Amino acid sequence: METIRTISWMKEKAREKRQDQRIIGLVPTMGALHAGHLALLERARKDCSPVYASIFLNPTQFAPNEDLSRYPRPLETDMEKLSAAKVDGLFLPDAAGIYPPGFSTYVHAEGISEKLEGKLRPGHFRGVATVVLKLFEIVQPHYAYFGRKDAQQVRIIQKMVHDLNLDVQIVVCPTVRETDGLALSSRNSYLEAQERKAATVLYRALQVARRELTAGVRDTLELVRAMHKVLVAEPLARVEYAEIVDADTFEPVVRVGRTCYALLAVRIGNTRLIDNMLIRSDGELASEL
Amino acid sequence: METIRTISWMKEKAREKRQDQRIIGLVPTMGALHAGHLALLERARKDCSPVYASIFLNPTQFAPNEDLSRYPRPLETDMEKLSAAKVDGLFLPDAAGIYPPGFSTYVHAEGISEKLEGKLRPGHFRGVATVVLKLFEIVQPHYAYFGRKDAQQVRIIQKMVHDLNLDVQIVVCPTVRETDGLALSSRNSYLEAQERKAATVLYRALQVARRELTAGVRDTLELVRAMHKVLVAEPLARVEYAEIVDADTFEPVVRVGRTCYALLAVRIGNTRLIDNMLIRSDGELASEL
Repeated sequence: METIRTISWMKEKAREKRQDQRIIGLVPTMGALHAGHLALLERARKDCSPVYASIFLNPTQFAPNEDLSRYPRPLETDMEKLSAAKVDGLFLPDAAGIYPPGFSTYVHAEGISEKLEGKLRPGHFRGVATVVLKLFEIVQPHYAYFGRKDAQQVRIIQKMVHDLNLDVQIVVCPTVRETDGLALSSRNSYLEAQERKAATVLYRALQVARRELTAGVRDTLELVRAMHKVLVAEPLARVEYAEIVDADTFEPVVRVGRTCYALLAVRIGNTRLIDNMLIRSDGELASEL
Repeated sequence: METIRTISWMKEKAREKRQDQRIIGLVPTMGALHAGHLALLERARKDCSPVYASIFLNPTQFAPNEDLSRYPRPLETDMEKLSAAKVDGLFLPDAAGIYPPGFSTYVHAEGISEKLEGKLRPGHFRGVATVVLKLFEIVQPHYAYFGRKDAQQVRIIQKMVHDLNLDVQIVVCPTVRETDGLALSSRNSYLEAQERKAATVLYRALQVARRELTAGVRDTLELVRAMHKVLVAEPLARVEYAEIVDADTFEPVVRVGRTCYALLAVRIGNTRLIDNMLIRSDGELASEL
């Protein structure tokens, strides 16, 4: 696996591959890779050659009070995992390359970026959209892969691609979970033993909503109430939001009648976790956790 | 000359041309073409084949109180001019294609977009940057051509290209002027006979500053004062700004010591005109009008 540390080199590579009619896949990450990332890479290898992973801990998507400085950076292990996953190249730029002095041009999906995660993490999605656009311009992927655990992020990236006429296909892959249901996240490493047990409460709450849906409940107030009941029963959990929203607009919905997300953000101790369930309603209702 | 009315068709064309190793040139316009546009096209034909012009009267760069509705739209004449200029294709999208329902993703060069023109025309440069990025994504030009009359716009586009790692070279062409010095602009057609005469005041003010520079004046307060003196002597003129700024940052400078712009925005009756002079200081000082 080749490690590509500069933007100009990565651009040159991409240009060559495009000229050779190769299909470029990109899996953008912030490192601290887990099985969720590996699932994205595996999927990318089915569609594309070459497949590039990027590792860039993007400062602009962290608010000043957030965990940028303590975010895990196990670069050596990450590189071993990428090698084992038969990734063709790792794009590993530094912050000064991505944000040179005087940098000030941002991409912003207005409206949707201010809701939910965006409300609690001001500037977060502006940072995400900007860096993802930059990665697309540099790596020139035909396909880019994202996990559905970050549902709002995925929707914003899809919206950006559509609104700005970008030439890349966004592929959304299912959330990968531990055997007890906890969605994989680099932030799970922050959890202490007791917190780790408590963290399954997000999955349990979503499962309860799923059972209610299966039983025919369509009223979102009732579904949200059922999730809250599970969440507040967990003493280590502090709910930030539990909502059911339209899967396109991320606006709250009153009844589940079209495709929705049940979205959760919960603090377990100092660790902020998110999870979601996709509620499809094309013809019959089906939910995916 | 081919007229291309849809984004998908333009994208397909661009993809083909790129695959055939052709060098694509783009001259983005809002129509109402004048000799300034034609100079851009001529320059583009020297560097590129094919050359595309776009005509799109971009609503997002007009504030609600501005002249979008009365902006000239002489499409037939424009198409004749483009044909005569041997342009390969005209990209002529409609507003619903460029801004489909739900559109909300904008590109914004923060800081520089809030100064001078941006201060007087809130949202203007956000609209410009967004539509230019979209045009770049759709037409995939290797080179794109802009006139130096819109100096701040050019700088913002250059900054966007640099900050977002876009793969396009920005070529800046000199301002084209009437024989009496008035910079060509589609908005000149708004001027009544008396106003048309008065409109040369911008050029005259810049020329006075040039003479002062040649005489050795470097203090920008003194240069600005000299320009103001000319401007206020014209009864039909109302000055919006007259400033000397750093050519990179558009921050005011105290002394002309590096490359600067003298920038003017003046209302002649109801018509808002802008003009500028580039003051180069690489080694010896030289000014370009």
